[in-house]
Amino acid sequence: MSIVTIERKVLEKNDEIAKRNREEFQKRKIFVLNLVSSPGSGKTSILEKTLEYFQGTIPIAIIEGDVQTNLDAQRIAKYNVPVVQVVTNGLCHLEAKFISEAFDSLTTDTIKLLIIENVGNLVCPSGYDLGEHHKVVVLSVTEGDDKPLKYPAMFRNASVLLINKVDLLPYLSTDIEEIKKNALSINPKLILFEISCTANAGIEQWGEWLKTKIEFK
Amino acid sequence: MSIVTIERKVLEKNDEIAKRNREEFQKRKIFVLNLVSSPGSGKTSILEKTLEYFQGTIPIAIIEGDVQTNLDAQRIAKYNVPVVQVVTNGLCHLEAKFISEAFDSLTTDTIKLLIIENVGNLVCPSGYDLGEHHKVVVLSVTEGDDKPLKYPAMFRNASVLLINKVDLLPYLSTDIEEIKKNALSINPKLILFEISCTANAGIEQWGEWLKTKIEFK
Repeated sequence: MSIVTIERKVLEKNDEIAKRNREEFQKRKIFVLNLVSSPGSGKTSILEKTLEYFQGTIPIAIIEGDVQTNLDAQRIAKYNVPVVQVVTNGLCHLEAKFISEAFDSLTTDTIKLLIIENVGNLVCPSGYDLGEHHKVVVLSVTEGDDKPLKYPAMFRNASVLLINKVDLLPYLSTDIEEIKKNALSINPKLILFEISCTANAGIEQWGEWLKTKIEFK
Repeated sequence: MSIVTIERKVLEKNDEIAKRNREEFQKRKIFVLNLVSSPGSGKTSILEKTLEYFQGTIPIAIIEGDVQTNLDAQRIAKYNVPVVQVVTNGLCHLEAKFISEAFDSLTTDTIKLLIIENVGNLVCPSGYDLGEHHKVVVLSVTEGDDKPLKYPAMFRNASVLLINKVDLLPYLSTDIEEIKKNALSINPKLILFEISCTANAGIEQWGEWLKTKIEFK
C-alpha cells in the first residue's frame, strides 16, 4: 500500500508540471503530441514519414525519449528539425519534468508542432501526462488484435490510434477489424488511421488531420 | 532521489522473496522460466507451441501475468495444464510475491517445468527477479534490429533470446544477423533460438534445450 501512496505523490507532482507545460505550449501556440507504443511498433518511422510529409512547410520540433542510446535522435537529425534526446537511464517512461527541461533547450521560437516520442512501453507512460494535447498510440498489426483489451489504460487515455504496418496483414492472422472493435470498446472516441510506412499508406490522411489541428488550435 | 531510494527498497524486498521462491523450486526440483518481451512478440504462442511439443510427456504448469484480462490463461487452458492467471491491475511487471501466491494455488506436486509469462513490457520486468532459473526474452523480428541496444537491461539479465516470427523476414527490412550481433554485444552469453510459431520452426531445438535443462537440473 505504501508503494501506491508514493506513486500517487509522484503522479500528482508530475501532473502539476504537466499543467505548466501545457500552459506554456498554449501560450506559444504549439500543438503537442505524445507518441506512445510498444517497442518496435514504428513510432520513429511514423515520425520520419510525418517530417517527409510536411517537408519544412510547418516548423516542427521533436523530443526523443529512450531508455538508452540516441539511435532515434540520430535517425531524426537528418530531417533538419530541432531534436532533443532524453535518455531515461532505465526509467520506463517520460515525465513532465523531462519535457520541461528538453523544451527549454529547444532554441527556436517558431515551432508550431512538437512531437514527443515516448519510451517504447505500452503500460507505464499511460499514467504520465506530459502536457501534450493528445496522446497518440501506435499499434503494429504484428502485435495481434487483443492488445487494446490487454493494455486498456493506454487506449483509454489516447485520442488517436495509428494502426501501423498494415502492409503485413496478408502474412498475419491478425484481424484489423477486430483491432478497431477492441480499441473502440475501450475508448469510443478514438480517432483511427491505418498506416504503412513501408508502403507509404495513410500518411496523407494522418498529415491532413494534423494540419487541421495546427491551423485551428 | 527519494524515488530511487524507494525503488531500491522495493527491489530489495522483492529479491528476498525471489530467493525464497528459488529455494522452494530447487527443493521441489522444478525448472522455472520467466518469459519476458514487448507486448505482441509472441510469448503466448511460444508457450502454446512448447505445450504442444511436450504433449503431456513432462508435467508443466503456467503462471500468466497480465495487466488486465485473462485472455492468455484462456488460450492456455485448452492444453489441460495447471494455469494460474495473475492480473496486475495496471502494474507493469510481475513481482516475486505474486509468484509465491500463484505457486501456492497450484495444487499439483509433480510439476517439472514452470513457465511464467510476464506482463508485455521490455523495460520494467528486467529488474524484478521472480526466483526463476532463467529469464527468456522473446523478440519479434517485426520490432526491428536495434531493440537489444535500446532496451539493454532486459537482454543483459536474460539467459536465452528467442527470435520470433522469422517467417516474416522476407517482408521486412530487419536484418536477423544484426539482431544477433546487437544482442550478443550486450550479453555474449545469450543462448539464441530462431522461432516461427506460424511455420512451426525452431520449436524442436527450443524443446530439446528445455529437455536437457529439466533432465540435468
